[in-house]
Amino acid sequence: MPKKKIYRIHIQTDGKSVTAHEEDNLAQSIRNAGIPLNNLCGNKGLCGKCRVRIKSGKVPDINEKEQFLLGESSSQDGLRLACNIPIKSDMIIDIPPDSLLTEIKGLKTGIIQLKDMEPAVKKYPFPVVPATIPDPLSIIAVIEKYFKKHNFILAPQVWKNIVSISSGQPSSATAVFYDGSELINVETGDTSLSNYGLAVDIGTTTVALELVDLNNGKKIDSSMLPNGQISQGGDIITRIGHAIQSRENLHCLKKAIRDTLEKMIIHILKRNNISPAHIYAVTVAGNTVMNHLFLGLPVESLAKAPFFPLMERFPIYCAEDLELPINPSAKIFTAPNIKSFVGGDISAGLTACSFFSRKGNFIFIDLGTNGEIVLKKENMYTATSTAAGPAFEGMNISCGMLAQSGAVYKAWFDQGLQISTINDTKACGICGTGLIDLLALFLTNVKISPSGRILDKEGKIKITNDLFLLQKDVREIQLAAAAVKTGVKMILDKARLKPVQLDGIFLAGAFGNYLNVRNAVRIGLLPEIKKEKIFFIGNSSLSGAKILLLSGKARKNIYAQVKKIKFYSLASDPSFQDRFINSLEFKQY
Amino acid sequence: MPKKKIYRIHIQTDGKSVTAHEEDNLAQSIRNAGIPLNNLCGNKGLCGKCRVRIKSGKVPDINEKEQFLLGESSSQDGLRLACNIPIKSDMIIDIPPDSLLTEIKGLKTGIIQLKDMEPAVKKYPFPVVPATIPDPLSIIAVIEKYFKKHNFILAPQVWKNIVSISSGQPSSATAVFYDGSELINVETGDTSLSNYGLAVDIGTTTVALELVDLNNGKKIDSSMLPNGQISQGGDIITRIGHAIQSRENLHCLKKAIRDTLEKMIIHILKRNNISPAHIYAVTVAGNTVMNHLFLGLPVESLAKAPFFPLMERFPIYCAEDLELPINPSAKIFTAPNIKSFVGGDISAGLTACSFFSRKGNFIFIDLGTNGEIVLKKENMYTATSTAAGPAFEGMNISCGMLAQSGAVYKAWFDQGLQISTINDTKACGICGTGLIDLLALFLTNVKISPSGRILDKEGKIKITNDLFLLQKDVREIQLAAAAVKTGVKMILDKARLKPVQLDGIFLAGAFGNYLNVRNAVRIGLLPEIKKEKIFFIGNSSLSGAKILLLSGKARKNIYAQVKKIKFYSLASDPSFQDRFINSLEFKQY
Repeated sequence: MPKKKIYRIHIQTDGKSVTAHEEDNLAQSIRNAGIPLNNLCGNKGLCGKCRVRIKSGKVPDINEKEQFLLGESSSQDGLRLACNIPIKSDMIIDIPPDSLLTEIKGLKTGIIQLKDMEPAVKKYPFPVVPATIPDPLSIIAVIEKYFKKHNFILAPQVWKNIVSISSGQPSSATAVFYDGSELINVETGDTSLSNYGLAVDIGTTTVALELVDLNNGKKIDSSMLPNGQISQGGDIITRIGHAIQSRENLHCLKKAIRDTLEKMIIHILKRNNISPAHIYAVTVAGNTVMNHLFLGLPVESLAKAPFFPLMERFPIYCAEDLELPINPSAKIFTAPNIKSFVGGDISAGLTACSFFSRKGNFIFIDLGTNGEIVLKKENMYTATSTAAGPAFEGMNISCGMLAQSGAVYKAWFDQGLQISTINDTKACGICGTGLIDLLALFLTNVKISPSGRILDKEGKIKITNDLFLLQKDVREIQLAAAAVKTGVKMILDKARLKPVQLDGIFLAGAFGNYLNVRNAVRIGLLPEIKKEKIFFIGNSSLSGAKILLLSGKARKNIYAQVKKIKFYSLASDPSFQDRFINSLEFKQY
Repeated sequence: MPKKKIYRIHIQTDGKSVTAHEEDNLAQSIRNAGIPLNNLCGNKGLCGKCRVRIKSGKVPDINEKEQFLLGESSSQDGLRLACNIPIKSDMIIDIPPDSLLTEIKGLKTGIIQLKDMEPAVKKYPFPVVPATIPDPLSIIAVIEKYFKKHNFILAPQVWKNIVSISSGQPSSATAVFYDGSELINVETGDTSLSNYGLAVDIGTTTVALELVDLNNGKKIDSSMLPNGQISQGGDIITRIGHAIQSRENLHCLKKAIRDTLEKMIIHILKRNNISPAHIYAVTVAGNTVMNHLFLGLPVESLAKAPFFPLMERFPIYCAEDLELPINPSAKIFTAPNIKSFVGGDISAGLTACSFFSRKGNFIFIDLGTNGEIVLKKENMYTATSTAAGPAFEGMNISCGMLAQSGAVYKAWFDQGLQISTINDTKACGICGTGLIDLLALFLTNVKISPSGRILDKEGKIKITNDLFLLQKDVREIQLAAAAVKTGVKMILDKARLKPVQLDGIFLAGAFGNYLNVRNAVRIGLLPEIKKEKIFFIGNSSLSGAKILLLSGKARKNIYAQVKKIKFYSLASDPSFQDRFINSLEFKQY
């Protein structure tokens, strides 16, 4: 076999150079060099996000699909999709800032009402008494004596700092306890004021992190970053498929998400001038696949019926085990899964809205990549998941995008179509709430029929000069909305409840307060219910992770609580297909 | 610097060859090649155990000290001490079997009365129910459901076997629980009959191990081997000195004891046809220095006043952490230290004789390398340690040896001096009980004066053709006995108890039932007390380790119990010197 030629790709934007073999994919080569080129769809040529400007080099002619994804103005501008370009020569390229994954501005998280604060880690300073005859004590015995506590567990590595404290004899030291029962470290001096934790939501698309002061429960800072696994598959199904192909793939997926988290942690700690050594607690909430991949657990059982997680709940790990860039003795608590695809993001979300301690009938809907629904009818709990797809996150939509800067998040009629964008910058895409508004508006003014057909002959509705909705986009939203609508209907029917009997709907997901409830009801996404009964709890997975970080009671109870939930498999219900098809039709007003 | 020449040492006995540099020490070179040449004194030319026969090669002339240690007959026999020989040419040598460390025949351990058996690890078989819709369960959830137990801890690695059980779907599997509270593994099939543990006593000189069936508490087999650290120092003080010189030395000492244990474990499991994977629990008892070195903990605080351990009690480790050749998930429980040099061997020993639950006044004496004494006066506990030295283990005695095959362990007069040897083989040395008998006999027939002087002009008492006692040997025993005698006296005086008020003396150590109590009283080693009040508990450190392996109550209580013990430092008592000197004089009869 003749050896492949090696070419050099020079990236003008940051002066970096990348070497790649002949016929390598340009997008992948750029990412391999550590440059966070956006490829939301996993190099499948679907998302149109990996735009680069070719300054010199041999490239194939632009094809119809690429032309379409780029839009007319972009392709005139010399832009190309890197994932469509095989390398055939040395190249010089530019990467516009929009094509790079950047930190996403966080949306509001739900309000946390925390009555019993018992953070995962507490620090207790104590005076270091020098060992003296006749009763010389080790530092452990000094701690036992000072705190009148003799039965705590000792973490395996606890002795390491004790060596230097024993010999250096500082005037004070600080005992670091996990959950009040395990001594995980001893620090020189009184470090009790520096006690921080991290709440993490690992989404399929986005990872969100909150830095919390464990001494008062206050948020210090937060950040979001796209999940680094995206380059190995945009959606859950692709990633499962990838992970089960080989243990190496599983390892790569694990590494990708850990790298993302590492980057976020290093960055947020630096920004807040906090030492990694002062982070002793992390709680992680993620859907079933995400928590498995993060922990490096095989996902074979999630790849085919009857679909179940390798573990519903997880061991409490050390940062060292998971190679996180914080104190090696830090404890990592992972929110437990409920059933198959109703994961830790949902158990955390239910924790965030005190679902289990409320009186009455409630429904919890999380509109993430999947649509998970949990119903509480007094003390009966039922969960289901619907294949809503990622349309509400802007994926698989021609001009769709995440709720990032420049996204159309709101639309209304006032002498013509009006739009608002996040941060009021130039509209560069449409996010979930924008899509719901637009669909509702076009249904109302009959640009779209109740069956979801764009009535214009071109099959295209222009929003701005650059943005538009295509027939396929409407279908995507229509399918997503119908999935949720069917799920809610079926779970209510099964429990013999009518929407009017609900005391409240908790609506979780990236929508936050942007969602126009009337429009959501219009397209059938939400059942008809009074507006004041709808509670937007935003990223409740993250809020739940934060509560788990701060409340010992929550950590103690969460698993017993989720065990109360029965799973209702929509797909196994013989009436499902029929109901789903019925749900596709939009209501006529 | 010119390069050192390399020579080849051929060992006829086993056909192995060793390469060594010019001027390397022959004994060390042999040991470096993995041959267990006995060098009890740590290559100091003190013990005379590393005898080899030089067949060819350049060697220095024999000097007076070596001649003395070898004895006349041996040196005529062509034997030399390998530690006295620098390598100056290629050599051919023979190593007599007596010069190799071999497995030592175990002495009896104390009788264990175990009322509440709750082994550290229990195995529970359960049927593997295939995951089915609508409620597919993970193996963890199957275990929870089957055993109606939902709050056990999950060990970090517990998922590994679950992967194969999930996919392979055997009809049954076995849950492995530690202490009833932590799931440490799940095994394919019903493996509940194969559930074994190891009780280990790490002595400064000897390591003893017992293989126990955790299902019934029965001993399956036992073994003993010299502590591999001996080549890095025969006594505790030398090893501490060595360990604090560098972290590398500490590592070497750790490695040496772990290698010894590894060898013993592999051997005993092979001999009994038991898979290492079926060993899930180990309890280790050792003196303060031994448990520190075994766990790899620095011993600086044990090297100088006020002498305290880095930790009195220890974390529960995994076999993986300590690199033991058993199931990686196995748990290692270490008996806690009491104070400074009253270590885990003593806490285990006290456990072995139910010291804390007895009514009355008792004294516990362990005559190991050190002499530890614990007094119980009703509910008051006092411990002390005396620098008895290793004389009773046959060390630093010209013809001394461990209680191995061929050791004179008993002596009496019956028309001349009579002796018995262990295993009735040819007498090749004298062990502790033999030394006590001989000293008592020679005091009685006035070959030795009450001041400890050998009255013969030569200063030597012949025992057999090869064995003898020298003045220095008598002094060693005299000092050791005086140390114990002073300790017992002072601890009783402090508690205002007379020997007659004691309800019993527990005598631990390698002596076992071989000790002649009358002779031990004669030389002042034991106070005058009725013979039936003396209980020989043998290697109580090992027995205690076994109880800790089998009794949950013992594991739970041991630390709180040892915390009750007050330490009494003999050396800090101003009357000590005076009392010690008084104790040196043997009683006249």
